[in-house]
Amino acid sequence: MTYKYENEINAVVNDLIEDYKKGKTIDKERNFDQPSKTALVDILCKLQKIIYPGYFRNESYKIYTTRNHVTMLVEDVMFNLTKQICIVFKNLPECNCQGLSEEDVCSRAERISLEFLDKLPKIREYINTDVEAAFDGDPAAFNTDEIIFSYPGVYAIFVYRIAHELFCLNVPIIPRMMTEYAHEHTGIDIHPGAVIGKYFFIDHGTGIVIGETTNIGENVKLYQGVTLGALSTRGGQSLRNKKRHPTIEDNVTIYSGASILGGETVIGRNSVIGGNAFITSSISEGARVSIKNLELHVNYDNRGKENVERVNFD
Amino acid sequence: MTYKYENEINAVVNDLIEDYKKGKTIDKERNFDQPSKTALVDILCKLQKIIYPGYFRNESYKIYTTRNHVTMLVEDVMFNLTKQICIVFKNLPECNCQGLSEEDVCSRAERISLEFLDKLPKIREYINTDVEAAFDGDPAAFNTDEIIFSYPGVYAIFVYRIAHELFCLNVPIIPRMMTEYAHEHTGIDIHPGAVIGKYFFIDHGTGIVIGETTNIGENVKLYQGVTLGALSTRGGQSLRNKKRHPTIEDNVTIYSGASILGGETVIGRNSVIGGNAFITSSISEGARVSIKNLELHVNYDNRGKENVERVNFD
Amino acid sequence: MTYKYENEINAVVNDLIEDYKKGKTIDKERNFDQPSKTALVDILCKLQKIIYPGYFRNESYKIYTTRNHVTMLVEDVMFNLTKQICIVFKNLPECNCQGLSEEDVCSRAERISLEFLDKLPKIREYINTDVEAAFDGDPAAFNTDEIIFSYPGVYAIFVYRIAHELFCLNVPIIPRMMTEYAHEHTGIDIHPGAVIGKYFFIDHGTGIVIGETTNIGENVKLYQGVTLGALSTRGGQSLRNKKRHPTIEDNVTIYSGASILGGETVIGRNSVIGGNAFITSSISEGARVSIKNLELHVNYDNRGKENVERVNFD
Repeated sequence: MTYKYENEINAVVNDLIEDYKKGKTIDKERNFDQPSKTALVDILCKLQKIIYPGYFRNESYKIYTTRNHVTMLVEDVMFNLTKQICIVFKNLPECNCQGLSEEDVCSRAERISLEFLDKLPKIREYINTDVEAAFDGDPAAFNTDEIIFSYPGVYAIFVYRIAHELFCLNVPIIPRMMTEYAHEHTGIDIHPGAVIGKYFFIDHGTGIVIGETTNIGENVKLYQGVTLGALSTRGGQSLRNKKRHPTIEDNVTIYSGASILGGETVIGRNSVIGGNAFITSSISEGARVSIKNLELHVNYDNRGKENVERVNFD
Repeated sequence: MTYKYENEINAVVNDLIEDYKKGKTIDKERNFDQPSKTALVDILCKLQKIIYPGYFRNESYKIYTTRNHVTMLVEDVMFNLTKQICIVFKNLPECNCQGLSEEDVCSRAERISLEFLDKLPKIREYINTDVEAAFDGDPAAFNTDEIIFSYPGVYAIFVYRIAHELFCLNVPIIPRMMTEYAHEHTGIDIHPGAVIGKYFFIDHGTGIVIGETTNIGENVKLYQGVTLGALSTRGGQSLRNKKRHPTIEDNVTIYSGASILGGETVIGRNSVIGGNAFITSSISEGARVSIKNLELHVNYDNRGKENVERVNFD
Repeated sequence: MTYKYENEINAVVNDLIEDYKKGKTIDKERNFDQPSKTALVDILCKLQKIIYPGYFRNESYKIYTTRNHVTMLVEDVMFNLTKQICIVFKNLPECNCQGLSEEDVCSRAERISLEFLDKLPKIREYINTDVEAAFDGDPAAFNTDEIIFSYPGVYAIFVYRIAHELFCLNVPIIPRMMTEYAHEHTGIDIHPGAVIGKYFFIDHGTGIVIGETTNIGENVKLYQGVTLGALSTRGGQSLRNKKRHPTIEDNVTIYSGASILGGETVIGRNSVIGGNAFITSSISEGARVSIKNLELHVNYDNRGKENVERVNFD
């Protein structure tokens, strides 16, 4: 017995197979060697347990000693991260592993994983300051537990700090897949190439974009919808590796919806940038910047006459 | 046989264990007693079936009678919510349960769960008005099924209405974990402390922030990117419990990207606030507010001459 | 033995059952016939493997031939999509299937699924151009693999292109559930009714809204927070099917936070719209539009004197 639409399905399949032969960009065969998002998310999940040893417990078994627990987590990250890095190294011509034996590629990946693991205490030191900055800066925070369990900004910064170390070790693709996973969960898009100092606090966070060549000092506070971006990217790939994004010095606060653009733009220390400001040149130290002349047109149309009132905010 | 990198892994573990002893904020031991995000999401999922009895069916078995089905769901929520509240009460010094016996803490949690369950018909009454407001307000809505199944605003408001009742019953951390879960899924960040009237409609919604002490009347409509925020939070924890966020009266519409800031700011009833408006003082009843003098610089640079044209929108 | 709170739980259940009888909008009984979000997400996941044959491998088994693999995926989509369309047709009075037999409804759904499958090569052609536009347009892109694996814009456009074909075949609810799933994952809200040309690139993307009646040409580039929206939706359902959203011609770039509103608004080809611009009337071909007179108030308050400086950006 034949399926009613056997011919139609065959025609669809034939069309697709013909189409796959046209050599499109999306036709590349990467069947058995791709970094796995699932594996990377699992690695992030284990790193979260290492970074915050008393939080994010595994619910399926009891843990008897911290040492056993941590050893098991570290070995697991070592094994799985090495595997993902190997996949990327073997498949990307950009990684210059073409001449190397399987074993040599693997050794290179192992050494990078170890170098990454050595950074964990440093990463913990930074993340600890981020949690403290969140508690100090947000009157709505009940305690630090609430921050660790529920603040999207703290999660996005945690993933960024992990991804940034891998980025600095010249691991391609994997750091970006990690930060895009955080972006998906939080609406906060931090490129792993950005350099960000201690005590970094993001409140609410949805819509924040922090570009690849951004430099952020210590004690910086960002609100939702802030863009630290490039002035123009119409140069496309020719702009790669150029400083395209701004520098934000220590103790700067940037309120919601502000855009700060351009690789030459520096926001001096102790400055406060008001909501919705649009800034494309440098601001010197200690400035309080706000939108000056945003007049509003206020019209009471349901009172029968036009009653225009200028509301000037500064 | 030893693992090739046994020494290196041991060194990483030793460094971490040393590091855990430094008494950082993130070093707190909360191993066996934490509210579980998984459990809270499951509770929300069951509450969704209770709130919308004909939607979000369980695909794994047939349901013979509404009574059996609802009883099962209510008992499950009672059991699991009580368990999560107990965990929070026992572990937070802020909850003043230190002197109490296990049984007394548990009874207190049970009573709160019951008080919460008693609010379900009231919550349903409010959510029903929210669904109706979404259908009435959105020309792109096909029918109310589409709204219930796919509108992120309706989901975020549902979670907020649940979390708000728990917040009013002085349950800490859990309400915020719930609204942050909704924030993660929708990009809409509503603090459980906000007070919001009936017929509340959020269209698109990504980037909306509604602060802890916001007051919203009935029939209010918000678009994506609206901030109902604080003027400055540089006071940090010292501002806790102060009215820091605005009051929005009945029948107000606020278009995308508008920011309304400050605890003294009141938007009078029947007002319409235009897109991208930035408002830090009160607007009286019936006003139509729009950006007045946002001139645009229009330059036709590819026609060989500078041709500046002022486009004035009001 | 009775459960301690048996009476209380019974009272809660009784109240709910009474409440269900009030005939609220949310009380509709849709118990056994609802489109399933899980099924739709699974269909999208299989379509992703068909669209990008060399990416997103199934990790659970080896694939020996492309033909077997594709046939299996196509048959699965055919079966499950037909099932979901049937559910929608049978339950919505709007679909005019009330007089039809089960078999006739099913045949109609099967024919629509086949028509949809026939569009797959065309969809692939468009998506290939989208991936190329992303690589050409973003200096931070490492290679096209990174784009396919991690760019939220590319994912949102993929889902939109699938949903749009179903929308054009007059399938209700399902296309919107698909694009809202993408919205949830990316913060990018594209209505399936919008018409979008080739080489479409969305960078970062969080907060983008593209309304139902938007028309977008080829080679258009959008940044995060852009709204292509309606001028006013206070007409609600009476505005259904009217052109309410703008037309964006070929080769237009729209920077972050810009809002372009209204069904009569046309942005002429080769235009560039600057960040945060708010546009409600047409812009002719080749224009470069930027905010003209957004003065900023810069106050160095910690230097002991008021030092106001006007920073005029154009």
